[in-house]
Amino acid sequence: MADLKQLMDNEVLMAFSTYATIILTKMMLMSFVTALKRINNKVFANPEDCVAFAKGENAKKFLQVDERVERVRRAHLNDIENIIPFFGIGLLYSLSGPDLSTALMHFRLFVGARLYHTVAYLTPLPQPNRGVSFFIGYGVTLSMAYRLLKSRLYL
Amino acid sequence: MADLKQLMDNEVLMAFSTYATIILTKMMLMSFVTALKRINNKVFANPEDCVAFAKGENAKKFLQVDERVERVRRAHLNDIENIIPFFGIGLLYSLSGPDLSTALMHFRLFVGARLYHTVAYLTPLPQPNRGVSFFIGYGVTLSMAYRLLKSRLYL
Amino acid sequence: MADLKQLMDNEVLMAFSTYATIILTKMMLMSFVTALKRINNKVFANPEDCVAFAKGENAKKFLQVDERVERVRRAHLNDIENIIPFFGIGLLYSLSGPDLSTALMHFRLFVGARLYHTVAYLTPLPQPNRGVSFFIGYGVTLSMAYRLLKSRLYL
Repeated sequence: MADLKQLMDNEVLMAFSTYATIILTKMMLMSFVTALKRINNKVFANPEDCVAFAKGENAKKFLQVDERVERVRRAHLNDIENIIPFFGIGLLYSLSGPDLSTALMHFRLFVGARLYHTVAYLTPLPQPNRGVSFFIGYGVTLSMAYRLLKSRLYL
Repeated sequence: MADLKQLMDNEVLMAFSTYATIILTKMMLMSFVTALKRINNKVFANPEDCVAFAKGENAKKFLQVDERVERVRRAHLNDIENIIPFFGIGLLYSLSGPDLSTALMHFRLFVGARLYHTVAYLTPLPQPNRGVSFFIGYGVTLSMAYRLLKSRLYL
Repeated sequence: MADLKQLMDNEVLMAFSTYATIILTKMMLMSFVTALKRINNKVFANPEDCVAFAKGENAKKFLQVDERVERVRRAHLNDIENIIPFFGIGLLYSLSGPDLSTALMHFRLFVGARLYHTVAYLTPLPQPNRGVSFFIGYGVTLSMAYRLLKSRLYL
């Protein structure tokens, strides 16, 4: 128990824990936005989800692909493709004992870029707003991967 | 080495490890169910997968989108969207030294809700079976995120 | 701080860290391949991405589903479905104090199989190249899950 306490007293790990939790929670909220868009636009993927609106064969007209829903789903999938590598590489990077200020810069830049990415995707803002925020987040994760492999390579 | 041993002797981390492994393994089994459904219904996504059934142009008739396969894939994607934030937030929460009985309640509720969610999705059971199990799992992860940020905020 | 240093001095965790970072970085590169294929083939998912090629209504003809892009996206999704359970289960397995040579065999086999899987998917190579590499990676993760649950079950 003592060891575990000391582990989370490490400032880099505490900072990672805070930023990772914030951005994973934001990612989860995309499910909620998708559900809201489905209900508001009456567009569903499963027949059993439509029965509140119509019975039997009539319900099938609500089984559609709608661009307003698909946009949220693409934003969600892009989050999964980027936030999860950030989590995995970032956790291992945090455990490798990096400099606190360097680590904080990585975490803050990533979380800021991904929050802006969501706004740019859902509004939608004209390019290159979404593209630039995507590449900043991408670059931060690659930078942590590079630093980690440079300091702790074990093949 | 000694430190690592003590780390996994922590009861919360051992419990998280058990429940997370169970639910990640369940998530992986969805790939297997998808593969079975594709073979049983002869519905494939790639031309090279059809050659066991037909040669050349003839093989292309097996490249279809089939609702029985798509349902499993939607259930799998929903797992990814929910079980991965549970893993990330749950691991950090476990490291933050929570009360054992509170932590166990979170892990058990999540794993139970997601197992029921899979049954409700694949049967399919009428709503709100799937919806309720989704929201229980969602609420458990948000509760861990809230407790973690409350006890260990470092911005 | 001392504890954290000792944690990453553990050889199994250092090895996991190296192999996991390599394969997560490879997974991230799939986003880059998708973007390249979209630009080369002028096929986009969002109207705001087409404006470099055409204005107004004319831009909509670039909003298509293209098999060359979809193949990369399926490979990317398959990575997500398999590399993420490897990361989660592999991290917990590494913390449970396994034998170094056994752990290395698991990590090397998984990373090799998934690299081959990507080559087999994108070339594409005839089956069973992709199928076999998929099942090797799948089996490695299940083997780690089994060893972890056998040594550290806490329900």
